Amino acid sequence: MAGASWRSTSIGLDIEVQCLGDGNGNVVHLYDRDCSVQRRHQKVIETAPATGLSRETRENIFRDACHLLALNKYRNAGTVEFLVDKNGQHYFMEVNPRVQVEHTVTEEITGIDIVQSQILIASGKTLAEIGLTQELILEPNSYAMQCRVTTENPAHDFRPDTGTIDVFRMPAGFGIRLDDGPGFPGAKITPHYDSLLVKITAKARNRKDAAAKLTRALREFRVRGVQTNKSFLLNVLSNSDFLDGEVDTGFIAANPTLLSPLKEKDRAQKLLHYIGEVVLNGTPKSLGATGEAPSTVDPMIPKIVQEHKEKKQSLKQIFDMHGAEAFAKAVRANEGLLITDTTWRDAHQSLLATRLRTIDMLKIAEPTRVALRNAYSLECWGGATFDVSMRFLHECPWDRLNDLREAVPDVPFQMLLRGANAVGYTSYADNVVYQFCKLAKESGMDVFRVFDSLNYIENMKLGIDAVGQAGGIVEAAVCYTGDVSNPKRGCYDLEYYLQFVRELEKQGIHVLAIKDMAGLLKPKAATLLIGAIREEFPNLPVHVHTHDTAGLAVSSMLAAAAGADVVDAALDAMSGTTSQPSLGALVASTQNTDLDTGLDLHDVLKLNEYWEECRGLYAPFESGQKTGSADVYLHEMPGGQYTNLLYQSSQLGLTGQWSQVKQAYSSANRLLGDIIKVTPSSKVTGDLAQFIVSNKLTENDVIEKAEQLSFPSSVIEYFQGYLGIPPFGFPEPLRSRVLKGRTIKGTDGLSCFSGRPGAQLPSFDFEGTRANLEDKWGTEKISKYDVMSYAMYPTVFDEFMERQNEYGKLSYLDTRTFLTGMKVGEELNVSLEKGKHLILKLISVGETSKDGIANIQFEVNGQPRSVHVKDKRAGVKDTQRLKALEGVTGSIGAAMPGVVLETKVKKGDTVKMGDPLILLSAMKMETLITSPCDGVVKQVVVTAGDTLDGGDLCVEIDEAL
Amino acid sequence: MAGASWRSTSIGLDIEVQCLGDGNGNVVHLYDRDCSVQRRHQKVIETAPATGLSRETRENIFRDACHLLALNKYRNAGTVEFLVDKNGQHYFMEVNPRVQVEHTVTEEITGIDIVQSQILIASGKTLAEIGLTQELILEPNSYAMQCRVTTENPAHDFRPDTGTIDVFRMPAGFGIRLDDGPGFPGAKITPHYDSLLVKITAKARNRKDAAAKLTRALREFRVRGVQTNKSFLLNVLSNSDFLDGEVDTGFIAANPTLLSPLKEKDRAQKLLHYIGEVVLNGTPKSLGATGEAPSTVDPMIPKIVQEHKEKKQSLKQIFDMHGAEAFAKAVRANEGLLITDTTWRDAHQSLLATRLRTIDMLKIAEPTRVALRNAYSLECWGGATFDVSMRFLHECPWDRLNDLREAVPDVPFQMLLRGANAVGYTSYADNVVYQFCKLAKESGMDVFRVFDSLNYIENMKLGIDAVGQAGGIVEAAVCYTGDVSNPKRGCYDLEYYLQFVRELEKQGIHVLAIKDMAGLLKPKAATLLIGAIREEFPNLPVHVHTHDTAGLAVSSMLAAAAGADVVDAALDAMSGTTSQPSLGALVASTQNTDLDTGLDLHDVLKLNEYWEECRGLYAPFESGQKTGSADVYLHEMPGGQYTNLLYQSSQLGLTGQWSQVKQAYSSANRLLGDIIKVTPSSKVTGDLAQFIVSNKLTENDVIEKAEQLSFPSSVIEYFQGYLGIPPFGFPEPLRSRVLKGRTIKGTDGLSCFSGRPGAQLPSFDFEGTRANLEDKWGTEKISKYDVMSYAMYPTVFDEFMERQNEYGKLSYLDTRTFLTGMKVGEELNVSLEKGKHLILKLISVGETSKDGIANIQFEVNGQPRSVHVKDKRAGVKDTQRLKALEGVTGSIGAAMPGVVLETKVKKGDTVKMGDPLILLSAMKMETLITSPCDGVVKQVVVTAGDTLDGGDLCVEIDEAL
Repeated sequence: MAGASWRSTSIGLDIEVQCLGDGNGNVVHLYDRDCSVQRRHQKVIETAPATGLSRETRENIFRDACHLLALNKYRNAGTVEFLVDKNGQHYFMEVNPRVQVEHTVTEEITGIDIVQSQILIASGKTLAEIGLTQELILEPNSYAMQCRVTTENPAHDFRPDTGTIDVFRMPAGFGIRLDDGPGFPGAKITPHYDSLLVKITAKARNRKDAAAKLTRALREFRVRGVQTNKSFLLNVLSNSDFLDGEVDTGFIAANPTLLSPLKEKDRAQKLLHYIGEVVLNGTPKSLGATGEAPSTVDPMIPKIVQEHKEKKQSLKQIFDMHGAEAFAKAVRANEGLLITDTTWRDAHQSLLATRLRTIDMLKIAEPTRVALRNAYSLECWGGATFDVSMRFLHECPWDRLNDLREAVPDVPFQMLLRGANAVGYTSYADNVVYQFCKLAKESGMDVFRVFDSLNYIENMKLGIDAVGQAGGIVEAAVCYTGDVSNPKRGCYDLEYYLQFVRELEKQGIHVLAIKDMAGLLKPKAATLLIGAIREEFPNLPVHVHTHDTAGLAVSSMLAAAAGADVVDAALDAMSGTTSQPSLGALVASTQNTDLDTGLDLHDVLKLNEYWEECRGLYAPFESGQKTGSADVYLHEMPGGQYTNLLYQSSQLGLTGQWSQVKQAYSSANRLLGDIIKVTPSSKVTGDLAQFIVSNKLTENDVIEKAEQLSFPSSVIEYFQGYLGIPPFGFPEPLRSRVLKGRTIKGTDGLSCFSGRPGAQLPSFDFEGTRANLEDKWGTEKISKYDVMSYAMYPTVFDEFMERQNEYGKLSYLDTRTFLTGMKVGEELNVSLEKGKHLILKLISVGETSKDGIANIQFEVNGQPRSVHVKDKRAGVKDTQRLKALEGVTGSIGAAMPGVVLETKVKKGDTVKMGDPLILLSAMKMETLITSPCDGVVKQVVVTAGDTLDGGDLCVEIDEAL
Repeated sequence: MAGASWRSTSIGLDIEVQCLGDGNGNVVHLYDRDCSVQRRHQKVIETAPATGLSRETRENIFRDACHLLALNKYRNAGTVEFLVDKNGQHYFMEVNPRVQVEHTVTEEITGIDIVQSQILIASGKTLAEIGLTQELILEPNSYAMQCRVTTENPAHDFRPDTGTIDVFRMPAGFGIRLDDGPGFPGAKITPHYDSLLVKITAKARNRKDAAAKLTRALREFRVRGVQTNKSFLLNVLSNSDFLDGEVDTGFIAANPTLLSPLKEKDRAQKLLHYIGEVVLNGTPKSLGATGEAPSTVDPMIPKIVQEHKEKKQSLKQIFDMHGAEAFAKAVRANEGLLITDTTWRDAHQSLLATRLRTIDMLKIAEPTRVALRNAYSLECWGGATFDVSMRFLHECPWDRLNDLREAVPDVPFQMLLRGANAVGYTSYADNVVYQFCKLAKESGMDVFRVFDSLNYIENMKLGIDAVGQAGGIVEAAVCYTGDVSNPKRGCYDLEYYLQFVRELEKQGIHVLAIKDMAGLLKPKAATLLIGAIREEFPNLPVHVHTHDTAGLAVSSMLAAAAGADVVDAALDAMSGTTSQPSLGALVASTQNTDLDTGLDLHDVLKLNEYWEECRGLYAPFESGQKTGSADVYLHEMPGGQYTNLLYQSSQLGLTGQWSQVKQAYSSANRLLGDIIKVTPSSKVTGDLAQFIVSNKLTENDVIEKAEQLSFPSSVIEYFQGYLGIPPFGFPEPLRSRVLKGRTIKGTDGLSCFSGRPGAQLPSFDFEGTRANLEDKWGTEKISKYDVMSYAMYPTVFDEFMERQNEYGKLSYLDTRTFLTGMKVGEELNVSLEKGKHLILKLISVGETSKDGIANIQFEVNGQPRSVHVKDKRAGVKDTQRLKALEGVTGSIGAAMPGVVLETKVKKGDTVKMGDPLILLSAMKMETLITSPCDGVVKQVVVTAGDTLDGGDLCVEIDEAL
């Protein structure tokens, strides 16, 4: 034979010939094996016989192998290894005296037990005596393929994993042979085991069948508790080149994609992980569930059947087939009062902190579809539900819309759109708003109620335009405040509203909405206002929305019904106080009148029974407020804000001064120019009110000392025009004093927006965002809807996605489990998407180990599963902090409790009066602390991230005298 | 000296002469003592010198005494005792060689120390040596009086008491001398001590002054923990004969009144006893407080000042000066809507189970007086408040009325009167109703709303007449049910109501009330009904009352206001759901309209803030119902009953079937003849409804099997006519089947009342009742009002009086303490009637001793007090009971859980089908179990007083085949 041996970088076929020698010159071969599929010279899959060789090449290899061993009177089993290059040239590599692990493929195709044979040979027998002469060893007519399942983790560069094997199930069946490593349930895989779990050999008539068998065996092979290289093996076995047999030793290195893991599908495990969290650590703090425990009654789902078929087209069909104008005409022509049911949105936003979960709507979707088929719309989206569903409920708002649309296909859906900021709290670039409305319409949204928190027409134009282009029904809202029936109230009189409606009408709206968000519309005012509007716009459908804050909502709606076409209502169990008027009351009181709503009271009441019980599930989110109160006419706070402010004030330690807070709210309103108060403008008023109370300021002080006061950032942004321009302009001289020496972030030093803030924002780059979202969360997880969610709430979306990866989709979980987890021994039936049921049972909650991990045992469909959960029930450490000295202008304290965001100065700086020192964030608003005098900074005692109490020392300045 | 000695029954003066002898014939006397005040020959009070003797008698006594002792060469101190009869004759009784306990009075008036002297004599000195010759012993010029304070308890025939002395404080001061027994704090007084606590001697210039001094010393003398004879001594000392000195040995026996104890005044101790109870055993079960703990916020009392003086007369003044007609005219003439505030009665009856306590009304009385001075009335009395205040709040309803009247003198008061049964649940004799109204009027009641639960005119006549004669304003009510705006409803149509009003009008009523007790009046119905009434009775003031059950109350009232003069409302924090419409809403919505209520919204809202916080104190009585619901139009249950029935059904284990209960309620209504449902008629409907559900009957079954069914006793009484006759008569054949074989208790076998049940009741004997109430509870505790309370609720009154004796008046106690007691270390300020403050502090709660008594330490005004409270926190024992066998007619079980009142048969009796076997009382109604077949009673397995579960075996009968 020619030449020396070169190995290890050259590519080719790695062929082995299995031989047996009895030590006195007799040698037989058991044909060949192909070991070309390698990763870093580690054999991955071996096959026998070698098919990629010509018949002639094989003959030469067998002859050389046997000749070589016979020469040395070889005793025992031996393997002769060759490298065959592309054109069939074979090169001798080495002889290997041990029985190789891959000898099993040879055994399978020849039917000869090699280990047994060499025991017989070792005991002195010859080949003939044991019936192993060459002609007795028939040409194999079948094919064998083998692979090793190890704990090497392809996702982490094949590092062997460790852990306790939870589940270990082995495949079986014809032509499958297993040779095992140490794997069995309960076995501890520790680093010094070699990483082999089991060897699987498949035998079939040919390569493809063998590969198919091996694949099937691998799928059935179930291991839990340690990672395995299974996904990698399956990639190789399903690779087309491999199946055709054209592979050589460079195969794997040439196809790196083989290394990336399959989409592993185990959602049950994630769900268990969430339930384990809740079982161990209780209701997640982040949910903000402060009230009582959820009730233990499962709401019963009523059966509501529709007696006779409907002849006339439903409003939804009119809209779908004839568009928005036809919809508006049909509404205007309808005699009787039309109803919008807000139970799915505004009702739970006002009463249950927007926490209603999709699953509780879907459960009642079918009966609702029947009972409210004659409703004008179901308000089910937008408002705070968009961010709350992601932030607190870990639900995708778009999925909610799709699921509801699918469940209730033929009643119009309605959403609340905040003019220029869609469903967000701040302004966005225009193309965001357009894109948002387009996507909402595509997902099945029909009616868009567009409003602006200051009735700022420019913001309205944008919203209206965005909805129009998306093809939705434009329901433009005018926000109602004040009291038109009170001539002495000033500002918001009849003329103001008619003027605003005229401008809206020019924009080509389809429906006009009157949004009385604080429940200030009295019956008399309703008659005046709507009478006046109806008179001037006889064909414009009018839709009235109110809250029952003072207990007058039903009366005002009945009064409004004289001229209005539609009113908002909520089912009785979700109505009243800060929510909408009771639907039952409206239906009952208009029965047998020409205002009949066309809804059947019995059906409505059946729906209601469900909500009576369903509301119990959300007891943790009840505000505790039992009745409405007429003092809303004095402070004019919109629904949710009342409870919110009450709650924040007690947090800020201002409980005893609740009535001052209310007065401060009125004067804050005056200071801001007597504005309309709804989210987000009401937030500005609330922030200013608290600022006034905690700094013991009077209205005059605020105006006098405006240049020195460090206002909440929402107040500053307001005066900078972030929300647009208030109806009666910004009051002077307060505004210019507040803006003195301040500029808008992200613009080149302009002190305030003239006109619409969004107009000057750069347009949002969807493609770019999508690209880097995809490589952050993986491609098939990011749709255009996700990009939109990110556009709206970047941080919230990120957290949401993390939750998704951690817990999977939680929206299948019933609410009680979602909130309080399971009890030991409790069995739960969870239905994943269509038809797949999981039966979960909580078996035991293990003790928390020293490193704070607790092991929780479940049974999923009868099979035990365990999850490891971090125990978060430990305490907080704290240090005592210096207080600012009263009466020393140089020692500056924090005006209110908060967190330090930034320190703007350091020791030794010289500062002038009004220079910014510290940026503070208190209760979701940012405060700038500026210097009250000239001097040199003596020391800064806080760093970013510190939590401060009111009056804590921040900066000391040596006053320049 | 003449004659033998007779003692012990003869009356006279018991005189002693104190002498000293030195053993060799020298004797001196230290004048005399009078020991005539005796009880069973026990000396009670001794005085020196004896004043009731003539100078001559005294001389003879001294001479005889000394002569007698000198003869026997008497050594030592000695007392010679004489009896002096009415005409000055003195008889020698005996010589007593020991120093008597009463020697102190002699020492005081002579200034000679007798004990010291006899020590000197005993050591051999003579009288002269110690300066004791007769002429040196001056005639005394002062007076001394002595008494002994013992543990003898006059209330229990002077039996000596035992116990540990809690407090022991001794008097002091000029002329007071103490000689002591074993009394000191902490001392254990056990039976074998003699019962003396301390001897007190008073010295003054004369008898009266000495008695005054002794009295003062006795009053200052404070002992706690054992009874003393102090009250007895004070009676003697303040007795006029005693003070004049004309008393002899028969004095006490002749004046037995001296023995009865003073009005002991220690109310603080009782109050502590109650607080101790609550501290140890928690909120008393009997209060029925099942909800959350009361809030810890003390309601702030707003300050409301009245700007300018009122010129025109208030309605109250018109009524007081010109009578009811003038009142009615003024109401009719008033333009604007008048308001009745139900916060003090119907509001808390509907929302807080009638538990509002007087003290929380009085706290807000002053601001209410100002804010609601233009109200038509304040509804503050009657309805369920009468029995609830006694039964649960331990308050006297009459005191409440007086306290409120005193606090709010010039706004009319209104009460609810239940026609023939005033404020009770059953019928009373006529003179009770008359007397009741007379007393109510005297106590300051103005407007009486009279109604009957079936609109039964006969009962109304009585009520109207009783109010008329008492001089009150007759506001006759027509109970509203059904729906006049619904032509298909039948029965209660417009004509029915007009017809009823006509009959009322004939009775000469002053105001007509429309009582919509279930909140069924829709706005449209209100317009129709009141429009029709106004048209026919233009001068009759109309007053409308409703509940916000369906959320329509405000609208209906606004609709009603078109024709009505007055409507009922409650302050916002106490309005809504099962209560009245919100006052704030009405005031706000009628501002600047010709319906203006004349109330100032700001003032109303200030009152409201108080009630927001006050309601928190009654959290334990909240029903948990969050919203109203329109399904009241289907089942027509009045306010309180809805919650009540819901609660009872869960008690009866019928929770799952709540909707069947509601349907059963409707069919029960039909079976009873479609009646008006208000207490007590609604109770009949409720009882029948539950009867139907728990026996799984249909409407037909009830009619068919009426003769065998054992109906609730309230249903039977209904058909017997206890409530009068229903508007559309009793439905046949059901009635006669129900009455078959039943007779009315206490009458001679008539099967039903024709006409008014009260008419045939014997008139109530007030004087006799008063007499035996007085000797049961003591005279000065029983007033004519108490007799009336007894007439209304005999058992409740008795329990109430027991509570009074145990705890004293609890109405001064603030509500939180009343409900939850105090915390250790908490200080509480309680103001008893005017000006007297107690400062209570809970010091410690002792461990419960073996015999189940715990010792609780308080400080009252800094002084420690302890009370001993029985520890009631232990468990209940139970036995298992046999169940009746299904399908064996002979084995008869209890239809529902209840208590056995009576067993009507015993073993061996022969019975026929329908014979009564057991009288059962279940959930406040009595059921008769009759036999389903003929046969012989095999055994009766229950006895009176047993508590049964549904299906428990009661009687076994061997069926006669």
